Amino acid sequence: MSDLLECHRQDAVLTIRLNRAAKKNAINTAMYLALARELEAAESDPAVSVILLCGQPDIFSAGNDLSDFIDAADDCMDPVLVFMRALHRVGKPVVAAVRGAAVGIGATLLLHCDLVLASEETRLVYPFVKLGFCPEFGSSRLLVQRIGHLRATQLMLLGDPVSAARAAEWGLVNEVLPDAQVEPAALEAAGRLAAMSVDAVRTSKALLKAANPELESLFEEEARAFTRLLKTDACQQTLRSMTSGDTRRK
Amino acid sequence: MSDLLECHRQDAVLTIRLNRAAKKNAINTAMYLALARELEAAESDPAVSVILLCGQPDIFSAGNDLSDFIDAADDCMDPVLVFMRALHRVGKPVVAAVRGAAVGIGATLLLHCDLVLASEETRLVYPFVKLGFCPEFGSSRLLVQRIGHLRATQLMLLGDPVSAARAAEWGLVNEVLPDAQVEPAALEAAGRLAAMSVDAVRTSKALLKAANPELESLFEEEARAFTRLLKTDACQQTLRSMTSGDTRRK
Amino acid sequence: MSDLLECHRQDAVLTIRLNRAAKKNAINTAMYLALARELEAAESDPAVSVILLCGQPDIFSAGNDLSDFIDAADDCMDPVLVFMRALHRVGKPVVAAVRGAAVGIGATLLLHCDLVLASEETRLVYPFVKLGFCPEFGSSRLLVQRIGHLRATQLMLLGDPVSAARAAEWGLVNEVLPDAQVEPAALEAAGRLAAMSVDAVRTSKALLKAANPELESLFEEEARAFTRLLKTDACQQTLRSMTSGDTRRK
Repeated sequence: MSDLLECHRQDAVLTIRLNRAAKKNAINTAMYLALARELEAAESDPAVSVILLCGQPDIFSAGNDLSDFIDAADDCMDPVLVFMRALHRVGKPVVAAVRGAAVGIGATLLLHCDLVLASEETRLVYPFVKLGFCPEFGSSRLLVQRIGHLRATQLMLLGDPVSAARAAEWGLVNEVLPDAQVEPAALEAAGRLAAMSVDAVRTSKALLKAANPELESLFEEEARAFTRLLKTDACQQTLRSMTSGDTRRK
Repeated sequence: MSDLLECHRQDAVLTIRLNRAAKKNAINTAMYLALARELEAAESDPAVSVILLCGQPDIFSAGNDLSDFIDAADDCMDPVLVFMRALHRVGKPVVAAVRGAAVGIGATLLLHCDLVLASEETRLVYPFVKLGFCPEFGSSRLLVQRIGHLRATQLMLLGDPVSAARAAEWGLVNEVLPDAQVEPAALEAAGRLAAMSVDAVRTSKALLKAANPELESLFEEEARAFTRLLKTDACQQTLRSMTSGDTRRK
Repeated sequence: MSDLLECHRQDAVLTIRLNRAAKKNAINTAMYLALARELEAAESDPAVSVILLCGQPDIFSAGNDLSDFIDAADDCMDPVLVFMRALHRVGKPVVAAVRGAAVGIGATLLLHCDLVLASEETRLVYPFVKLGFCPEFGSSRLLVQRIGHLRATQLMLLGDPVSAARAAEWGLVNEVLPDAQVEPAALEAAGRLAAMSVDAVRTSKALLKAANPELESLFEEEARAFTRLLKTDACQQTLRSMTSGDTRRK
């Protein structure tokens, strides 16, 4: 399981890298649980002050592994919820270095990071409705708060991808950099945060997040709607047609 | 009454066109009630998946018909509230194609649409305070959420008009197009939405709107303040001076 | 005490100028209390319709006087809270004319103004976490609402200053003008507001602010965290090193 994530700590910054390049960093059950464990361990480790989340050079994450959604059971979102809660509960700052596309939960998880640097090649894609699902991970509220209802509809309902430049203009990423500079710049920002008072940073992050006190129940509400839609015949057909090529290549 | 609106369905997209060009598409009591009926009928008609709202080529709507506000009774906002609730309760996506100016409730109703395309000639105008009233249709909250308190004050209190380009920059419209392209592009977007899973679209729209659960009581609170201000001598004088030319031409 | 503020009324616009140029308009206890008194007096004076808040030509305000935070007592935020409540409770519109930098509470108080005009030289700086504190004056919520979590983290946690142009782009100021035009333009905007129906303006401002009904308890929650952090050894050391030159020059 450890090979799905690549973790190392440099001074007080823990880097967690999604490490499933062969599957475009699609996140499967084992990876959700491994991510949750790493985040919880980092949160309680006094040697870690800041968490840096990275993907692969050409893709941050293709989102949830769609093959996990075929014939999915009622509790198929449970491991995803374990990850959601873990990321949401991290009191230490989380910096994301995004290179390439961030799709589905690969895009919505960025709504829970504190700083996001992206490469010029980055696109954010929220294909939920196109696939027959609905928004998850609090994105139905957070995206509306961040960019307003009209743009959220465009991204979520029409499924229009967002370029890196547009994402920066709309406040969905902090800064767009040439690809080679994304991870060094993110590490530098993480280092700046790590150099500050841990108590002041933690207290301030908690205050900045306090405007959304009930996100965990929203995660669950969205997940119930998501699971219901996932189990419809229409959605299963779409998923089978999208993953069939994938399955043949296995 | 039917001539105040022009409705036709093409595949699963119902177009509702405000059709009172001689009065700059100002909305009067009969029109509010007709709009509410059309929206409710569309909502319950399984043949309709998406609603497209259009105005006239040179004006989307001049807002509430001011002559209805002269010597207005305590319940003068009742038909307006019937329309507000109907638009707010539509679970199907509503796309607006705006050509020319959208004034007063012609501008605030756009805050309840899911996609808004505008022409280069479009201006949004919120003249409520200039006329002696206050914001309505939830705009006191929605506009602040959408563009922040400072810009909302500029639009609502100073009454500064917003150009189409500025409206796009601020997220009050999705896109600005040459006039002749606005309605075709809106129809195309409506068609894309109609091609998706009705259940997924409906569920997702409901989730995106859930961040504002108590809008209907806000409509009523604003309407009470609006009616109180409307009945003051100062406001009635302003209205009489603004509508006197209008009345002469009747 | 009166020399810390310079107030004069022209028609219905009361100008309150922070007047402590020798200390970069840093606000001390006496000044917080004087500001609160002036705001409360303006609120109840029927001759005043609009309040215009100005700083010095080269600095709006350097923020809280840091020397007041040395060996600070548990109740050190009490006069600050008196000012916060007074500004928050003003029902008349408050226009701010910002020239030069606005730092700390000099920046967060702008979140409670209704219109903000800034000069090209203006920078907004939120150095709270750098100094070992946390956000105050509701800024932990208001800044997130205004510019989103990612940009708020950048400003609040990293302490990155915001240029005037960026502040206008992000909706933290309404407009950026050449320095000499800032105060005349702010006075002109204040005059436009003063010419409108006092009742309509007051009612509308109240509606625009109603989305944040519990700000005063947030002021107190933030102040408790602020005071706790202020009294830590780490924070006191930072403050002593920053104010020692200052003290020598006294």
